[in-house]
Amino acid sequence: MSLIVQKFGGSSVANADRVFNVAKIVTDTYAQGHDVVVVVSAQGDTTDDLIAKGQEINPNASKRERDMLVAAGEQVSIALLAMAIEKLGYPVVSLLGWQAGFQTSSAHTSARIRRVVPNRIRKELDKKRIVVVAGFQGVSRYDDVTTLGRGGSDTSAVAIAAAMHADLCQIFTDVEGVYTADPRLVANARKLKDISYDEMLELATLGAQVLNNRSVEMAKKYNIELEVLSSLVRAPGTIVKEKSKMEKMLISGVAKDTDVARISVIGVPDEPGFAFKMFSKVSAKNINVDIILQSIGRDGKKDISFTVPADKVDEVKACLTDYVENIGAKDLLVSTDVAKISIVGAGMESHAGVATKMFEALYDAQINIQMIATSEIKVSVLINKKDADRAVTAIHEKFFEE
Amino acid sequence: MSLIVQKFGGSSVANADRVFNVAKIVTDTYAQGHDVVVVVSAQGDTTDDLIAKGQEINPNASKRERDMLVAAGEQVSIALLAMAIEKLGYPVVSLLGWQAGFQTSSAHTSARIRRVVPNRIRKELDKKRIVVVAGFQGVSRYDDVTTLGRGGSDTSAVAIAAAMHADLCQIFTDVEGVYTADPRLVANARKLKDISYDEMLELATLGAQVLNNRSVEMAKKYNIELEVLSSLVRAPGTIVKEKSKMEKMLISGVAKDTDVARISVIGVPDEPGFAFKMFSKVSAKNINVDIILQSIGRDGKKDISFTVPADKVDEVKACLTDYVENIGAKDLLVSTDVAKISIVGAGMESHAGVATKMFEALYDAQINIQMIATSEIKVSVLINKKDADRAVTAIHEKFFEE
Repeated sequence: MSLIVQKFGGSSVANADRVFNVAKIVTDTYAQGHDVVVVVSAQGDTTDDLIAKGQEINPNASKRERDMLVAAGEQVSIALLAMAIEKLGYPVVSLLGWQAGFQTSSAHTSARIRRVVPNRIRKELDKKRIVVVAGFQGVSRYDDVTTLGRGGSDTSAVAIAAAMHADLCQIFTDVEGVYTADPRLVANARKLKDISYDEMLELATLGAQVLNNRSVEMAKKYNIELEVLSSLVRAPGTIVKEKSKMEKMLISGVAKDTDVARISVIGVPDEPGFAFKMFSKVSAKNINVDIILQSIGRDGKKDISFTVPADKVDEVKACLTDYVENIGAKDLLVSTDVAKISIVGAGMESHAGVATKMFEALYDAQINIQMIATSEIKVSVLINKKDADRAVTAIHEKFFEE
Repeated sequence: MSLIVQKFGGSSVANADRVFNVAKIVTDTYAQGHDVVVVVSAQGDTTDDLIAKGQEINPNASKRERDMLVAAGEQVSIALLAMAIEKLGYPVVSLLGWQAGFQTSSAHTSARIRRVVPNRIRKELDKKRIVVVAGFQGVSRYDDVTTLGRGGSDTSAVAIAAAMHADLCQIFTDVEGVYTADPRLVANARKLKDISYDEMLELATLGAQVLNNRSVEMAKKYNIELEVLSSLVRAPGTIVKEKSKMEKMLISGVAKDTDVARISVIGVPDEPGFAFKMFSKVSAKNINVDIILQSIGRDGKKDISFTVPADKVDEVKACLTDYVENIGAKDLLVSTDVAKISIVGAGMESHAGVATKMFEALYDAQINIQMIATSEIKVSVLINKKDADRAVTAIHEKFFEE
C-alpha cells in the first residue's frame, strides 16, 4: 500500500459529469488499497468569475480581500467532489487550505508555501478516509486566507506529497502527458515516457503549460516522482523524475510561447551601469526578464532589447518611461507581435550542434530569428508571432521525424 | 463612541449597487465615530444556487460537506463588501466564521453557537478597522466548518453583540421595522417604535419573518438592544428591548403563517400515554408541534390534531405511520390548506377579552376557526388558507382602526 497524491485542475471538475469522472478515478485508486489525498482547483471558470465580480466592485481592492474572494472557489469544488465520492459509497472528507495545514507567506495573491503540517490529513487517512484538499490556498501566520497565485494547485499537490513522503504525485490534466511538441499543432508529436525535472522545468517556463514550474522546482527539491496524465483517457502518462533513463534523445520537446512581448530601448548611453539600473527597476516589480539582446555600441549609444511576459508590458512601460527619458535614450519600443520557440533537452549538454540544427530548420522554413538565448539544456529564439506554428512544425520534423 | 453591530441579509447585498449601499451605511456609522462590526449573509440566491449544485451531485450528501459547500457563499459576500468599503476609502478587514471566533456545536447544517471568542475582531477594531464578518457560519471543536441553519446570520450578529457587549445591534432588512400587520396586506398597518423581546419572539415564531427567533431569544438572554430597520430607506426602525414603554397597546401586531400543516390522527384509543408516545416520536425528530387539539373521547376512541411546519409533513408521516397502525388508529390525515393567524401583545396579560375580540372579528368576516391556541401574550387560530389575508385585515381593523 502506498500514499498517492492526485491533483485535478479546474476543467477536470467543471460540471457534475466531470466531478463524477474524477470521483471514479480517485475511488478506483483507493479501492486498489492506496491512501489517497486529492487536490482540486476551483471549477472551470469559477476563479475568473469571482475575479470579475471583485473587479466590478473595486478594481483596486486589497490583495487580502481578493484572496478571501477567490478562495471560495475551491471550497465549492472540494465539497462537490466529496459529495460525489460519498455518492459512490466511499468514506471521504474535504479540507480547506487552513484545515489541511498549508502555512504560507503573507504575500497575498502569490503566497509561497512555508510548510505543510499534515496532522489533520494524516488523522483522516488513518480513519481510512479519502482526503480532498483545496488547492491554491493556505493560511498566513496572521490567520488570513492566502492564495498561491495562478497554477498554484500543482504546487499544493507537490507540497503535500513532499510533506507526507508520498510515493507518487499524479497531476491530472486535459492532455495525456508531456509531448515532443503540442499535439494539436504537430501531428507526429509523441508522448514522452519520462522526462527529467530540469527538462520539465524549462518546458514549463517556456510555455508548454503542462505543469506549473514552481511545482516542478519543488518536486525536484524533494525528489517527488510526478506523473502527468489525462483525467479523461485512462492511460499511463509521462513520469517526471530526477534522471530520465528510458529514452536517450537529443531533445525532449519543442515549446511555443506567444504570451511574450519584446521591449526595445533605443539609444542607451554606451557606458557601464545603465543596463543594470534598467533591469533592477524591472525586477523590483517582480517581473521576469527573459531573453536579453544588446547591440554593439556606436557613437556612444547602444540599443537594449529584452522580453517579458505579455501581460506585464504596461507595468514595464510605467516603470521605465521616466528612466528612459532621464538618460536621454531615444525611444522605448514595444512589440507583442512575437513568439518564443524553444527546444529543451538534457542531451544538449553532451551534444554540440543542437542549436545549429534548430537554426537550420528555421532557415529551411524561411523564418527570421529576432533574438536568441541559450542555457545548458535549452535554446530559445524570438520570431514573428505569425511564424510560430510553422516554426514548431519545422523544428519538430528536423529533430524527431528525419 | 460606542460599538455597533450591523447585520445585512442576502437581498441587501444581492448585487454591486446593493453592496455599495451597504458600504455607505456602514462607513457613515463608522464616520460618526463608532466601532462597527458588520455581519453579512450570502448574496441573494447564492445559498440556494449552491444547495442546488450539491443536490445535482448527491441529494444525500453528508451534512458536513453541505456545510462546506454553502459556507462559500458568505465568503464571497464579505470579500465583496470589504472591497466596496475599501473603495470608499475606509480601513476594513473581512473575517470568516472561524477567524471571527464563532465556536459552534458539531450539528452540521443547524449548529448552535457555543461561544464567540472575539479576540481577532477586537484586535482589528483596535486598529480602527471596520470588521466584516461572515454570518451563518462557524467552526466546530473538530475544526470543521459549520452553518447555523437558515436565518442564522441574525443569530451571528446578536452573538457578537453579546460577546462584545455592543451598545446596539441593528438588523437591516427589506422592511422598515416591525408593523402591526404585514404592510403589503394591510394598508393601515403602522410601524411600531418599540416592542418587547417576548412579543417579538411570538411574532417571529408566528411567521412575521422579520427576525429569526433564535436571535431574539439570544438578545433577550443577554439583554442586547436590537433595532430592525431598512437597508434601503434611511429611517429609524423598531427597537426590540426588554420592556416596551413607549406604546401602551393592547396588541402589538397581527401575524400570518401559511407554512403550516395540520395533521389529524383519527381513532386513537382514549387511554393515557398514547398522545405522549406519539408526540415524543415527533419531537425526537426535532420537529416543533404547535397547536394541539384533542377531541373528547367517545366509544373509547379520540382524535388528536396538531400543526407542524409545512416542510416537515413527510417526516412526520414517516415517523408516525407505523405507530398509528400499531395502536389501531383509523387514519392519519394531512392538510396543508391551512393558515395560522395570531395576535401578539404583552397587553393581553392584563386585559381580558382580547381573544374574544379576535374571534368576533373573524365571525364578522364569516371565517371559520379550526383550532385555537393561546399563551400569555398571544392567541393563534388555524383557518382555511384562502381566508388568511381577509382574516389579517379584519383583525387589524378591529384592534387598530376602530
